[in-house]
Amino acid sequence: MTKKLWGGRFSKDLHPEAMEFTSSLNVDEKLAEYDVIGSIAHAKMLAKCKIISNKDKDSLVKALNTILNSIKRGAFKPSSNSEDIHTAIYEALQKKAGKAADKLHTARSRNDQVSLDVRLYLKDEIKALIALLASAQKSLLNFSKKNVNVAVPGYTHMKHAQVIILAHWALAYIEMLQRDKERLHDGLKRIDVLPLGACAFCGTSLPIDRKHVAKLLGFLNVSENSIDSVSDRDFVIEVISALAILAMHLSRFAEDAIFYGSDESGFLDVDEAFCTGSSIMPHKKNLDTLELIRARSATIYGNLMASLTMMKALPTSYNRDMQLDKEMLIGSVEMVKKSLSLAAKLISGIKVNREKIAKQLEDEFLYATDLAEALIEKGFSQSEAHQTIGKLVTYCVDKQKKISGLDNDELKKFSLDEGIKKLLDPLTSADAKSSFGATSRKNVKRQIIVWERKLKDA
Amino acid sequence: MTKKLWGGRFSKDLHPEAMEFTSSLNVDEKLAEYDVIGSIAHAKMLAKCKIISNKDKDSLVKALNTILNSIKRGAFKPSSNSEDIHTAIYEALQKKAGKAADKLHTARSRNDQVSLDVRLYLKDEIKALIALLASAQKSLLNFSKKNVNVAVPGYTHMKHAQVIILAHWALAYIEMLQRDKERLHDGLKRIDVLPLGACAFCGTSLPIDRKHVAKLLGFLNVSENSIDSVSDRDFVIEVISALAILAMHLSRFAEDAIFYGSDESGFLDVDEAFCTGSSIMPHKKNLDTLELIRARSATIYGNLMASLTMMKALPTSYNRDMQLDKEMLIGSVEMVKKSLSLAAKLISGIKVNREKIAKQLEDEFLYATDLAEALIEKGFSQSEAHQTIGKLVTYCVDKQKKISGLDNDELKKFSLDEGIKKLLDPLTSADAKSSFGATSRKNVKRQIIVWERKLKDA
Amino acid sequence: MTKKLWGGRFSKDLHPEAMEFTSSLNVDEKLAEYDVIGSIAHAKMLAKCKIISNKDKDSLVKALNTILNSIKRGAFKPSSNSEDIHTAIYEALQKKAGKAADKLHTARSRNDQVSLDVRLYLKDEIKALIALLASAQKSLLNFSKKNVNVAVPGYTHMKHAQVIILAHWALAYIEMLQRDKERLHDGLKRIDVLPLGACAFCGTSLPIDRKHVAKLLGFLNVSENSIDSVSDRDFVIEVISALAILAMHLSRFAEDAIFYGSDESGFLDVDEAFCTGSSIMPHKKNLDTLELIRARSATIYGNLMASLTMMKALPTSYNRDMQLDKEMLIGSVEMVKKSLSLAAKLISGIKVNREKIAKQLEDEFLYATDLAEALIEKGFSQSEAHQTIGKLVTYCVDKQKKISGLDNDELKKFSLDEGIKKLLDPLTSADAKSSFGATSRKNVKRQIIVWERKLKDA
Amino acid sequence: MTKKLWGGRFSKDLHPEAMEFTSSLNVDEKLAEYDVIGSIAHAKMLAKCKIISNKDKDSLVKALNTILNSIKRGAFKPSSNSEDIHTAIYEALQKKAGKAADKLHTARSRNDQVSLDVRLYLKDEIKALIALLASAQKSLLNFSKKNVNVAVPGYTHMKHAQVIILAHWALAYIEMLQRDKERLHDGLKRIDVLPLGACAFCGTSLPIDRKHVAKLLGFLNVSENSIDSVSDRDFVIEVISALAILAMHLSRFAEDAIFYGSDESGFLDVDEAFCTGSSIMPHKKNLDTLELIRARSATIYGNLMASLTMMKALPTSYNRDMQLDKEMLIGSVEMVKKSLSLAAKLISGIKVNREKIAKQLEDEFLYATDLAEALIEKGFSQSEAHQTIGKLVTYCVDKQKKISGLDNDELKKFSLDEGIKKLLDPLTSADAKSSFGATSRKNVKRQIIVWERKLKDA
Repeated sequence: MTKKLWGGRFSKDLHPEAMEFTSSLNVDEKLAEYDVIGSIAHAKMLAKCKIISNKDKDSLVKALNTILNSIKRGAFKPSSNSEDIHTAIYEALQKKAGKAADKLHTARSRNDQVSLDVRLYLKDEIKALIALLASAQKSLLNFSKKNVNVAVPGYTHMKHAQVIILAHWALAYIEMLQRDKERLHDGLKRIDVLPLGACAFCGTSLPIDRKHVAKLLGFLNVSENSIDSVSDRDFVIEVISALAILAMHLSRFAEDAIFYGSDESGFLDVDEAFCTGSSIMPHKKNLDTLELIRARSATIYGNLMASLTMMKALPTSYNRDMQLDKEMLIGSVEMVKKSLSLAAKLISGIKVNREKIAKQLEDEFLYATDLAEALIEKGFSQSEAHQTIGKLVTYCVDKQKKISGLDNDELKKFSLDEGIKKLLDPLTSADAKSSFGATSRKNVKRQIIVWERKLKDA
Repeated sequence: MTKKLWGGRFSKDLHPEAMEFTSSLNVDEKLAEYDVIGSIAHAKMLAKCKIISNKDKDSLVKALNTILNSIKRGAFKPSSNSEDIHTAIYEALQKKAGKAADKLHTARSRNDQVSLDVRLYLKDEIKALIALLASAQKSLLNFSKKNVNVAVPGYTHMKHAQVIILAHWALAYIEMLQRDKERLHDGLKRIDVLPLGACAFCGTSLPIDRKHVAKLLGFLNVSENSIDSVSDRDFVIEVISALAILAMHLSRFAEDAIFYGSDESGFLDVDEAFCTGSSIMPHKKNLDTLELIRARSATIYGNLMASLTMMKALPTSYNRDMQLDKEMLIGSVEMVKKSLSLAAKLISGIKVNREKIAKQLEDEFLYATDLAEALIEKGFSQSEAHQTIGKLVTYCVDKQKKISGLDNDELKKFSLDEGIKKLLDPLTSADAKSSFGATSRKNVKRQIIVWERKLKDA
Repeated sequence: MTKKLWGGRFSKDLHPEAMEFTSSLNVDEKLAEYDVIGSIAHAKMLAKCKIISNKDKDSLVKALNTILNSIKRGAFKPSSNSEDIHTAIYEALQKKAGKAADKLHTARSRNDQVSLDVRLYLKDEIKALIALLASAQKSLLNFSKKNVNVAVPGYTHMKHAQVIILAHWALAYIEMLQRDKERLHDGLKRIDVLPLGACAFCGTSLPIDRKHVAKLLGFLNVSENSIDSVSDRDFVIEVISALAILAMHLSRFAEDAIFYGSDESGFLDVDEAFCTGSSIMPHKKNLDTLELIRARSATIYGNLMASLTMMKALPTSYNRDMQLDKEMLIGSVEMVKKSLSLAAKLISGIKVNREKIAKQLEDEFLYATDLAEALIEKGFSQSEAHQTIGKLVTYCVDKQKKISGLDNDELKKFSLDEGIKKLLDPLTSADAKSSFGATSRKNVKRQIIVWERKLKDA
Repeated sequence: MTKKLWGGRFSKDLHPEAMEFTSSLNVDEKLAEYDVIGSIAHAKMLAKCKIISNKDKDSLVKALNTILNSIKRGAFKPSSNSEDIHTAIYEALQKKAGKAADKLHTARSRNDQVSLDVRLYLKDEIKALIALLASAQKSLLNFSKKNVNVAVPGYTHMKHAQVIILAHWALAYIEMLQRDKERLHDGLKRIDVLPLGACAFCGTSLPIDRKHVAKLLGFLNVSENSIDSVSDRDFVIEVISALAILAMHLSRFAEDAIFYGSDESGFLDVDEAFCTGSSIMPHKKNLDTLELIRARSATIYGNLMASLTMMKALPTSYNRDMQLDKEMLIGSVEMVKKSLSLAAKLISGIKVNREKIAKQLEDEFLYATDLAEALIEKGFSQSEAHQTIGKLVTYCVDKQKKISGLDNDELKKFSLDEGIKKLLDPLTSADAKSSFGATSRKNVKRQIIVWERKLKDA
């Protein structure tokens, strides 16, 4: 019979297909390190509480540290027969620590152990994700700094709306990624809770000291209800949910950049290092990296749905179903890290095509709102101003004329005069929008300074 | 032509089917009140900034207050031709405030206005949700207080695991609902940001004072990037996501209660007021309310996926797609409120069936872990203790004997003696588990006191 | 106590909140007609089998027909106290048919009855959906017929790829919608199965004749396992799943049309009757209807996830959870019908802007693949041809020249000569692609004829 | 620079992170065989159409067959630098076939090639899935045959409803799996369409013969619109959707079996080979395999959501996003195959515990409906019968009596007499329900014979 952490009452081995089906080894790899770190703290506590001897503790800690080093070096190879990473490490430990190994699992179940491992993993990974978010924000900030004097058409409903500063667009994404950081950071409070000691689900009669373990491992809190503790997967879902929103942000950035990189727009040019060609069409330079960043939102959405489905209507306390959380979580974390890392690099390599921008800015309806606001300042009600300029637009469309091409008589019909022609300038138009948060260069520069400060130590 | 907030450049009416398809009137009813409140603050600011006259402001505020009262009384009836609630209110305003009405929409777009409305709505609804969560927690706490001396089988994998205190089970759900409160509360930070003044998406050239509006409406922050501001739906998804986790908790509670209320278990008895019968089977008393609480997780999961899908790869700034967020959000909030309210009442009416519990407690394998821990205290390694008791279990199964029915000779084979028979008692077993967060009555009582304090002012 | 189809063993009324929570009246309305039709058949069978008298049958059928007429006229108003539409109709029946009404529910449970109603509803609605799909296909076909001589850039990865015929693009959507029809049609087989007579879940001891009911109602098959029969919701999920794919197709069409209607592209012009303006920007003509058609995919995806979640891990036979299927299904059917109907109308009103198309066709890299294929015909391997033309493209980019602007010496470097310049023509390019299914006008015309024939009787 | 199927116009290598991010090698492995088979047919057609020479064709076919053998032996190792499996195979081909290799990709793009590979893969895998479904059905049928005389409580709403035959329960799952087979089979029609020859998206000017390729590869149809052809992923979503319903069925079976295997019910006993123990509780025998079969529904639901999200609002024709379909599809197919295979084996090992069943059958309310139907046969209306027996139930509950314990005087109050006591027998009760599809042994035996015939050649 294969080695297991249980089995006294069993007379048969697990069916080989069931073995493979119930194994989580392929996804637990990322947890190996944390499993050992948790075990070291557990062994120390057991000795402190006189549940095991100091000698046993010393053998365990020494052997566990050897295993830890081997994991860190990438040299640890779990036997493919092991049910999970905990068992694989236990087997290795038995070889190194002998009989002492049999004492490590005292007052501990895999139910609380695996929750500990995932929480330790996430405490590190959330830091890593926040750092990658900051790095993407810095790329966007650099882009913004370079493009503070570049006016471009801004869009609502994918249609030319008003002139904006290109940097203002990039700064919008910095805001989104900032909220992503905050959401992950908020989630950390609910991760930073030690579950170890909940044992199977109802605690133990052995005189353990959970607060000591929390101190050794740097946890802020200790879980207060053992039943809840082993079957709480809220933090897993909460993280995947935050990553789904993050991935959605990246999908929107990708969509924008793909449109801006299209032959029709052409504002932006993505570096060849992030593009691929076609096996049949020799001229193609496709924005594949951006397309896949966009598409990866699907992966995270799918994982979110999967994690929620997994937990739906599960009876309290641990059920084996919960084992699947690891592939959903780790898969999501790994994929979002890759997307963020690439996005940061890709953004740094984006070039702006001023010629193509200039062409798009020839559309003078981008100034329609400026003209309406000019009328309002002259005393028109918003409704009158809107109607009047609406009619001007219709007039221009019908006559196929540009606003700048209208003579004074024509302008008068719409309560305007030649004076308004000075408004028909991209930077003038952008700078006029000087309300708080608006797109004027002054505002944009202020925003850049704010973000430079905020991101300095990120 | 029907009344619209736009239309100068249009020569045709919207197709009637398109009218119905693009209308959000049926869902934005819940926002009517907030729309008016936002408009009052906007009018005041416009006057303060001299964009409109004080006289116009006074007419507007007066008329808006009349409309507000009418909404609160349930007397406001939007015309079914209106595109949305904003337009419906604008029409009413025109009748009451005449020409002044045409000035209200100055320096404002529906893009920032609808975001304001939803944020105001959520600031109230999150308070309401948190209050309902507290109310469900109080029901669970009362249940706990009544069941602090009731030992029941605890489960992992839906199988008898170890004896627990029934109150400990209910307290686990209090923990879950507490995290739900925290998540909603954390989300509030990202809701409490004024979007108004972002206008269509790039701010305005008119001299508005957004901070003043924030002050009037009680917002902590003002959004810093107008483009982000009109197309940020993170907070909507974040709230639905928190509600999905909450609904999952309720689905688990329902599943537990349905199992405990089954003919096979029968621990718990749900009050008839929450049950229905069968149209064909005269004896049936079905736990329909619980089943539907369980099922409603599906509705919220669906809304979460819908809101994420809606936002996937949308180009920056506002797109009409975002209008659908309201039905997803409001539908979720309303449904979770109903589920919580019912859960609180249903829990208050649950009766405990001690006879049925006693029957289940006859299973002495519930003490297997206690026996293993007794061996560990006698010096066995965890592994030896586990193996030994595993063999005892197999022995009992094979011989069809209870542990209490074994004689001293038999017990000796498993390193036990008659002395262990005193462990085979439900409350003794529960009380032995005295580690922090475990199920002993002492712990449970402590937890109850903690929660009584925490929930006192909730 | 309120009227119920059960209650003998109950001593209390349902709690009013539980009443509202468990009621499905708000969504069952669409089923009312089918419920009555099913009851008429049931009554006839009961009489034929001598389970009720002919006299009772006659009273029932007469009263049910009166109710049916009232429903068809829109005059039937279920009391808001009714648990569901079945109960509401039963109440109406009691008033009209007296004691006979008490016999109608013999050998029937709401479990089989509601499944019958939904199946009858779907048999009609699938026909309606298929008709609407055909109608949208016809609009696309008309568009194709008008645009068989219009060459446009075709895209892969949102980048100019090769010249295609505009009709070929529209025909692609006809293919997609055809698969949608086939999927719905295939699903019909699994809907066309009579569940009535399964009763609560295990049939009845009364001598009913299910095949007779099937004949009266036009069902092809009778369900063969009563347990499966009352808890089979496969057909609901299958239909929503087919609608999700359909909605995805419409979302892609909308995305294309929004891009083609953008200021950057401008190929297509959507009729004002399907557009709306901006409350702040007077020049805007937004493609809101298309945006909402795109967004409605989210609603259907959400409903699909909800229906799957609802059924996940439900114990066999009926559970009240299943009641929610109706809002998911009916909501999806209704919304997709609206989207299809609008899409058909909107497509009919699309105008093509040849000027804008001509501008985009100035991009001569659209012919790169034609040039490579010319080299292959001259004996180059695919790989050599691809490399050679790739270099030509780089040369043109670097020198900022068009291919047509290269002289013979330059062309020779890439194994070409002046002769290839005749290839640089949109219709020549499109027509060259004459492989089966390709974009040549000859092919496109053939496809149009095929579809005209197929859609003639649809 | 690494080897690519494109690159003439590129001056830089792909960034290593972008390389990894855009690679699909890790999931394409399952497609390798089909890629080669497709290439062999393509090469033969190219020669037949004189696009390549017979000599080149012979080299290609020979080399490809060598590669095919190497793949089948598991000896083919794609270089980790390859972008995808097509490129990896192309590299291998170049080594073996020299210059001829450069001609294979003529009139072919990876866009149509990958669609071909997935369709060939699915044509095989759907057969495999249908065979596994049949195998699970056979296990259920064997279980049914062994349990045709075993009466058990049947459930609605997880509460005792009426007596059924245990085989009838298992037969319900055979019905569900049959629909799964039908759905997969129906989907095959839409898979069995050759996409090759659509090239990038608009066909080719080279004189290819697609029908010949279809014939060589055994495809029923050839796709009729090249644009649709390269971006049709309907069949992928349709298959995952069918698998999601299938996985839902398995989740319900698992839920049932977990409940029937609980300490409270205990009807069924799952073989140890599919159970695992606890690392802390020595007596545990947990139904982990069933729990994970239940949980895997989450994985498939997630993949379904992911595939739909991926396609949402993608512009027509190929986008790189679509590459992710393979991991969603192949992951789902592989996982469902494992679940089915295990389910079939696990069901074969289930033992029935008649003692526990007998205990549950002591509940005489299981006969309440039989008594009501007896009254109906005596002339009571359904409503009267239901009310009367409802009162009988209340009487028994209040007096804590069993129906069989009532004397004649008591029975008379409910219009019954001693004669009805013969109805209080499990098999009598089951056999009485003899309507078509009901649970009588006669019916069940008939169903078994029908399924034996149907499954004989499956």
